[in-house]
Amino acid sequence: MAINNGKGAIGLDKEDTLYQHGTLALLVPGLLTGTLTIGELLEHGDYGIGTLQGLDGELTLVDGVGYLAQSDGNVVTVDPKETVPFANAHFQRATDKLEHTQITKAALEKEIMQNHDYENIFFAMKIHGVFSSVRTRVVAGNRQPPFKPLAIVAQNQELFSAENVTGTLVGYYSPELFQGVASAGFHVHFVSDDHQFGGHILDYALTQGTVELQRFENLDLHLPVHDSTYRKHRFDYDDMSAVIRSAEGNE
Amino acid sequence: MAINNGKGAIGLDKEDTLYQHGTLALLVPGLLTGTLTIGELLEHGDYGIGTLQGLDGELTLVDGVGYLAQSDGNVVTVDPKETVPFANAHFQRATDKLEHTQITKAALEKEIMQNHDYENIFFAMKIHGVFSSVRTRVVAGNRQPPFKPLAIVAQNQELFSAENVTGTLVGYYSPELFQGVASAGFHVHFVSDDHQFGGHILDYALTQGTVELQRFENLDLHLPVHDSTYRKHRFDYDDMSAVIRSAEGNE
Repeated sequence: MAINNGKGAIGLDKEDTLYQHGTLALLVPGLLTGTLTIGELLEHGDYGIGTLQGLDGELTLVDGVGYLAQSDGNVVTVDPKETVPFANAHFQRATDKLEHTQITKAALEKEIMQNHDYENIFFAMKIHGVFSSVRTRVVAGNRQPPFKPLAIVAQNQELFSAENVTGTLVGYYSPELFQGVASAGFHVHFVSDDHQFGGHILDYALTQGTVELQRFENLDLHLPVHDSTYRKHRFDYDDMSAVIRSAEGNE
Repeated sequence: MAINNGKGAIGLDKEDTLYQHGTLALLVPGLLTGTLTIGELLEHGDYGIGTLQGLDGELTLVDGVGYLAQSDGNVVTVDPKETVPFANAHFQRATDKLEHTQITKAALEKEIMQNHDYENIFFAMKIHGVFSSVRTRVVAGNRQPPFKPLAIVAQNQELFSAENVTGTLVGYYSPELFQGVASAGFHVHFVSDDHQFGGHILDYALTQGTVELQRFENLDLHLPVHDSTYRKHRFDYDDMSAVIRSAEGNE
């Protein structure tokens, strides 16, 4: 790590920081106004995940470009002027890199948690490779208000699947303490190399690929403090974890 | 706000960021090893609060100097080489400034929350003035291991009070969503101008003083990822909120 590089916390490189705009909690009651542009998000990383205003689609940042998996099954490149209510980004520089063959999502995630003391820290997971199967969901939100609560929008999700698909998986592991701030556990998105398939991953089986992990020292959490709807909202946290697990969970 | 000033998040001034090292949650099971020096903490702000390794005393940063209220009633200046398991700091630049007379802790906090849409954002509170009464507690931790869980250390706290005391109150409001990451609600410390009295505030009545609030856009959360005890710990979050409220609460 370098001493103050002018790009992040003192004594840390920019690659040591996970940037987050918004909280998962604000999606729950439907505070879905976009409060950060894709352009601004990309200033905080070249890889990441998120959703657009109104929970419209599943966003994946790959090598500095935002790809949006839409509920009609199309994947489009996102205009930097589009906005997000919630997103993560980081500058990719793996701290662990492994070649993997023939492994399922469940087995890989179990192996990662068994082989590393990563339960209480944030880390990114990036996989590029060939997947024998990938199952995704794409929420069918609406770009313009009025917005609906997460549980309602999630009911309208579309399911997609692909076999023998080559592409990039991008996402994060967040510690349990941060449930509600983020989605605790693994939260990963996918976009195929041909940009024909993507979304929020429900399940996958990796045939062969490079699994990169990147642990972070810092979470740089940016809240939409200029959005009066966010500021004035009275959150009800009682059932939040259940709603999040249901809407963001793997199944 | 300035465009990238090289000191914090892009587009934000350093005064827009609240820095936090560690989580309140790690204090609960007694992960009290100091994992950041006071010197490092002061690079992230000139005002702040925290505790030393082993929950040894109540730390208050005022104008770039760390003051430690000890359980023997003394307040000492802290060596920059001392370490903290958990602390907050910010660069002071008030976004609201008000003169107040004759107001209690409860009334002032109620007034602040009624007059501002600050429930879902982080903000600092700094008061300098004359207090007709200040009641504090100082935890009686131990600087060297083995360390005890927060609930046990908190049972050994010492209580102090002062009347007609002039000094500085420093602390933070954290949204309810961040209970466990921080102490939700107000968490404030005090040090008198003559450095004879201080601690974690239980209650106060302000005679006359300047109340400064400073809202933050960013939480810069630094986790002790290099501490293997932290990384390996299996947290039990079931009773955590109750323990935190009991140990960190106002009464």
